Amino acid sequence: MPSKRELGLERFKELDPKGAEAMLELLGDIAPDLLENMLEFPFGDLYRRTNLDMKIRQTVTLTALATLNREAELKIHVRIAKALGFTKEELVEVFSQAAPYAGFPATMLGIRITKEIFHQP
Amino acid sequence: MPSKRELGLERFKELDPKGAEAMLELLGDIAPDLLENMLEFPFGDLYRRTNLDMKIRQTVTLTALATLNREAELKIHVRIAKALGFTKEELVEVFSQAAPYAGFPATMLGIRITKEIFHQP
Amino acid sequence: MPSKRELGLERFKELDPKGAEAMLELLGDIAPDLLENMLEFPFGDLYRRTNLDMKIRQTVTLTALATLNREAELKIHVRIAKALGFTKEELVEVFSQAAPYAGFPATMLGIRITKEIFHQP
Amino acid sequence: MPSKRELGLERFKELDPKGAEAMLELLGDIAPDLLENMLEFPFGDLYRRTNLDMKIRQTVTLTALATLNREAELKIHVRIAKALGFTKEELVEVFSQAAPYAGFPATMLGIRITKEIFHQP
Amino acid sequence: MPSKRELGLERFKELDPKGAEAMLELLGDIAPDLLENMLEFPFGDLYRRTNLDMKIRQTVTLTALATLNREAELKIHVRIAKALGFTKEELVEVFSQAAPYAGFPATMLGIRITKEIFHQP
Amino acid sequence: MPSKRELGLERFKELDPKGAEAMLELLGDIAPDLLENMLEFPFGDLYRRTNLDMKIRQTVTLTALATLNREAELKIHVRIAKALGFTKEELVEVFSQAAPYAGFPATMLGIRITKEIFHQP
Repeated sequence: MPSKRELGLERFKELDPKGAEAMLELLGDIAPDLLENMLEFPFGDLYRRTNLDMKIRQTVTLTALATLNREAELKIHVRIAKALGFTKEELVEVFSQAAPYAGFPATMLGIRITKEIFHQP
Repeated sequence: MPSKRELGLERFKELDPKGAEAMLELLGDIAPDLLENMLEFPFGDLYRRTNLDMKIRQTVTLTALATLNREAELKIHVRIAKALGFTKEELVEVFSQAAPYAGFPATMLGIRITKEIFHQP
Repeated sequence: MPSKRELGLERFKELDPKGAEAMLELLGDIAPDLLENMLEFPFGDLYRRTNLDMKIRQTVTLTALATLNREAELKIHVRIAKALGFTKEELVEVFSQAAPYAGFPATMLGIRITKEIFHQP
Repeated sequence: MPSKRELGLERFKELDPKGAEAMLELLGDIAPDLLENMLEFPFGDLYRRTNLDMKIRQTVTLTALATLNREAELKIHVRIAKALGFTKEELVEVFSQAAPYAGFPATMLGIRITKEIFHQP
Repeated sequence: MPSKRELGLERFKELDPKGAEAMLELLGDIAPDLLENMLEFPFGDLYRRTNLDMKIRQTVTLTALATLNREAELKIHVRIAKALGFTKEELVEVFSQAAPYAGFPATMLGIRITKEIFHQP
Repeated sequence: MPSKRELGLERFKELDPKGAEAMLELLGDIAPDLLENMLEFPFGDLYRRTNLDMKIRQTVTLTALATLNREAELKIHVRIAKALGFTKEELVEVFSQAAPYAGFPATMLGIRITKEIFHQP
């Protein structure tokens, strides 16, 4: 039976192969315990649960990252949103909805990254 | 034809009559221009758009408020989430998904308020 | 010649006698070094400088505190704003201007406290 | 009679022609509704009001953006501050006043951008 | 062999019996998966590791919570700090060190809670 | 007798000669009063106190900066941590401990900078 860590890595690769690769590369040598936490908790557990619509789940991640101005992680998660079936128009609307609560700059960060990810070949 | 302000007030009352009443009471005398902005922008515009699933839209608001620790507004928006058809279980899962990105305390705030709102008679 | 600490305490008392009293009470026994830092740096230095309009200076403090959701300190600084000659209408407008950048909840916190401070006898 | 959107665009161009151009370019194709919100709300409404000293108004924006670490928008608004008559010395003092409340790094971000904007030809 | 969840609960009870009880009470019925995540990840993993001085580890938690204004969790973790051997004087100094980076209000929150926890019978 | 400012500059240079140089260069001409505040308060006072273990003190700074996403200052303070005797493994663990409270992106920022600073020749 695969471990939670293995299931998490598989799920991460399914959602964003490029992001999973970069994470293994960044953490593999220097922070193996942290890598284990990330594979087990968000990817091996939360992202494998089926008790919430997957687009609603991803909306939480996108909003938290835009609100907190976390650009590197937001790029990964806009790519994951695309893989989960979000259209460019939906993502624009997700980030627009954040404006009255987190401020327009949170929205703008999300829009800039959406444009970048969707206009890549 | 109703103005954007009137449409916003109608929408706010439809989503959370108690919250709309409290907002009018709080801002009506001291901050009429701000009241106008709130009725026109989030309620008269964003919350009346149909280009995004309404539960996804509300998830953005819930996440931004929990991330930023804004308790008073989160209470209003958990009530609105309930009116939009979110179950208690879905809300627990929405706030749980925020933990790896905004930290467990953001999650806990959402859970406490969900429990409070859903256990009221 | 009075020390920077003495000048800071005098300035704090001049701006908000009640807040200064509470600070001495809270920090005097448990955190004398920290009390010294607060009296010397913001009150003994920044708030005694004359190279910036005093209402502009106070606007910085009000905005930072509302943005960061720091309610206890915001109460002190709305009182100081009142002592510096801000009208209720001006404070409402200051906090309203924060809405597009820090979100409406930052604005609402400022409005609630303004109402509370100005309606006290 | 010009619409609120037209008045907002006119006001934005008056305050920062370069920033207005970039905003139209960034949002025009991908997020026309959001562009409308930005032109109507902060620029077509708040920045056209005359019930608050314009330098106090701009101080709110500068402080919120520095506090929240929003570099892209802070560049636009330091340029607007310059257009509104802020001197380099005043801006340094505005950002310095944020240090005890939002931390020195918020101050440093503002200082770096001020230096950059004022030293451009 | 005890599960990670069991080890986490044991560790949490060892560090703060009152906080562990309250957490089980709050999450047990409404959010069992989240409770599992909290017991496994911070308490069953991080707080059981021995590769970092335990007071340094707790300083991270205290600082993150004070910086983010998370009062409920900060109370739990000041109690844990006390159980780990922090003196009142050390905690005052920990929170004082946050002032230049997170602002004095973060410091003040920590001081208030320290005073409250250490002066309880 | 050396002034607090001189003692602060000496301490800053001792902890991070490169960072001290850059600060003098950035602030010396444009913001001499702010430079004075930075030299006197964090470096001339907090970092010269001996009432708290120096690694605990530095952990506060590291955590606040990672939590608030302040990359420029975090680079300076990871260098200072290295000078104070933190190993790469300890720093990885410090930033890992922030994950449940400030979110994984705060942790990742710290890890990336640690890797960068420790792999420089």
